[in-house]
Amino acid sequence: MGAALALGERGRGRTAPNPNVGCVIINDGRVVGRGWTQPGGRPHAEAMALAAAGAKSRGATCYTTLEPCAHESPRGPACADLLVAAGIARVVVALRDPDPRTDGTGLARLAAAGIATQTDIRAADAARAIAGFLTRQRHRRPHVTLKLATSLDGCIALADGTSRWITGPDARAHAHLERSRHDAILVGRGTWEADSPALDVRLPGLEERSPLRVILSASRPHPSGALRLPRSPGGRGQVPAGAAGGKGEDNIWLTSPAAISTLPADHLLVEGGAQTAAAFLRANLVDRLILYRAPILIGGGTPALGDIGLTDLAAAHGRWRLHDARQLGSDRVEVYEAA
Amino acid sequence: MGAALALGERGRGRTAPNPNVGCVIINDGRVVGRGWTQPGGRPHAEAMALAAAGAKSRGATCYTTLEPCAHESPRGPACADLLVAAGIARVVVALRDPDPRTDGTGLARLAAAGIATQTDIRAADAARAIAGFLTRQRHRRPHVTLKLATSLDGCIALADGTSRWITGPDARAHAHLERSRHDAILVGRGTWEADSPALDVRLPGLEERSPLRVILSASRPHPSGALRLPRSPGGRGQVPAGAAGGKGEDNIWLTSPAAISTLPADHLLVEGGAQTAAAFLRANLVDRLILYRAPILIGGGTPALGDIGLTDLAAAHGRWRLHDARQLGSDRVEVYEAA
Repeated sequence: MGAALALGERGRGRTAPNPNVGCVIINDGRVVGRGWTQPGGRPHAEAMALAAAGAKSRGATCYTTLEPCAHESPRGPACADLLVAAGIARVVVALRDPDPRTDGTGLARLAAAGIATQTDIRAADAARAIAGFLTRQRHRRPHVTLKLATSLDGCIALADGTSRWITGPDARAHAHLERSRHDAILVGRGTWEADSPALDVRLPGLEERSPLRVILSASRPHPSGALRLPRSPGGRGQVPAGAAGGKGEDNIWLTSPAAISTLPADHLLVEGGAQTAAAFLRANLVDRLILYRAPILIGGGTPALGDIGLTDLAAAHGRWRLHDARQLGSDRVEVYEAA
Repeated sequence: MGAALALGERGRGRTAPNPNVGCVIINDGRVVGRGWTQPGGRPHAEAMALAAAGAKSRGATCYTTLEPCAHESPRGPACADLLVAAGIARVVVALRDPDPRTDGTGLARLAAAGIATQTDIRAADAARAIAGFLTRQRHRRPHVTLKLATSLDGCIALADGTSRWITGPDARAHAHLERSRHDAILVGRGTWEADSPALDVRLPGLEERSPLRVILSASRPHPSGALRLPRSPGGRGQVPAGAAGGKGEDNIWLTSPAAISTLPADHLLVEGGAQTAAAFLRANLVDRLILYRAPILIGGGTPALGDIGLTDLAAAHGRWRLHDARQLGSDRVEVYEAA
């Protein structure tokens, strides 16, 4: 299941509105097929793994991070049916699919065909891996990660706005990898206009993983309305060709954090600045916090967050749980999840 | 030597202007004497350990964290002479004493008496343990630790000043233990007047370790001048009797960070607030930073630091080196040392 989870990560940020599932098929102790949801959402992980395994699927065990789907679509048959047809003997599932078209039905269809099934294996890890899909199912909006890069005293820039560089190259590379795991990146209009951030993925081999660029602006600069899709909305999770580093036409403009429900993205990374971060926190729309900290003091600089509407300290406690932390050169990254 | 270092910690914050040394005497594989510099600076660690060992000092090995002193004083004989007279066979020293009255002379006197000597054993740990003494020798001022207790976004209070409680009980107990290791605690006048902090050690059994209270105030409220000593300055490292929680007469008032050179203390803890912390950083007078961080976000609160005079980010890097970090309940403490 660990291998299946790792495979599922390959699709993260590129499969919305489908979940980024991973799948491994084992026959007689050997891996005979591996699959992960492809960009755009199809083929599904199980279909890809079954295709790779071919005849070796017969009598094999399939490990998949999400319950195989039970619904056909114009884009392909149901994975539960594919597994039955391939003669799979046993299916191990990390997490049941909350999509009402599948929820329990996928497992039931397998069991009805005589396939041994098992579920809730590393379910928490699977839920974390496909957080975008689950958040969309539950809350009808993307899963939101807020990124902050601060000094030890919580500043994101000098008083004059200078923020290059607070963190070192290892932390910055990690932040770019994190971008590649999201369908969309959002910044506030102030940051957009002040810093002209490219918001792309500048890692060798991952340039094509650059997410959609989204700009939060209450004043709505585009005449057509709150949300403007890029010219090639089909290329989900990729900046449309020729748009890298550009401005304007290929960006999505939003007038409020609540409008993120309309984004064609299931994993949204909010990158700044302090007022935009605060607006998402105030609206209780942050699911995950990724905090890069450099061992420097700035003093009197730009604080990481504007007003988040906190009125007493007791209310601040118990809202964030440390999930992961590691050293990146002289910096430290910490990942917190909403409790 | 590890045991000697631990014994030396017992005196930390109570031995100024003497170093807080630790000493262990071993004979035939057994500990026969232990000592540490007593409050006020005498007896010295070696004298205490020799007294405990008695006749078992003959032929024994003495481990001590600082070179035995070579100078007599009205308060006692030189430890090097005591070791010779006791018939010690071997002396292992962590660190040579930078005090010119001893520097090298202590070891030479032992060697001249036929005692085997060895030095530079865990020297870095010893230097850290007696940082106050070494800083006084080198810079003619106390060793300064700056304490900050912040949220993840670097706030030390809500916008309205509320700061109870950012950190949890484990972190607060650790902070009180840290107080007990200092001769003096300093806060700014604003913090003093706003919070009426007791600045004492509220840990069972350590109440008597409460340090001197020092208040930084440019406007110098006391008519007699920059520095007013408490009524019982002999009780170094202890709040004078009856003064706990009181205000005024028993506090020391300083007009600037530079005036700390006059304090009868070798370990000074600067506890706040943001302007006072910034004043010490601006004056380049912080040797050690102890940072308590709670997993909360405040947003728009009181930043940890005022202006420290930083004009570009490059100048901020490389100044602090992480020495220690640990989890305290849901909080984290990090200790940085000036590079």
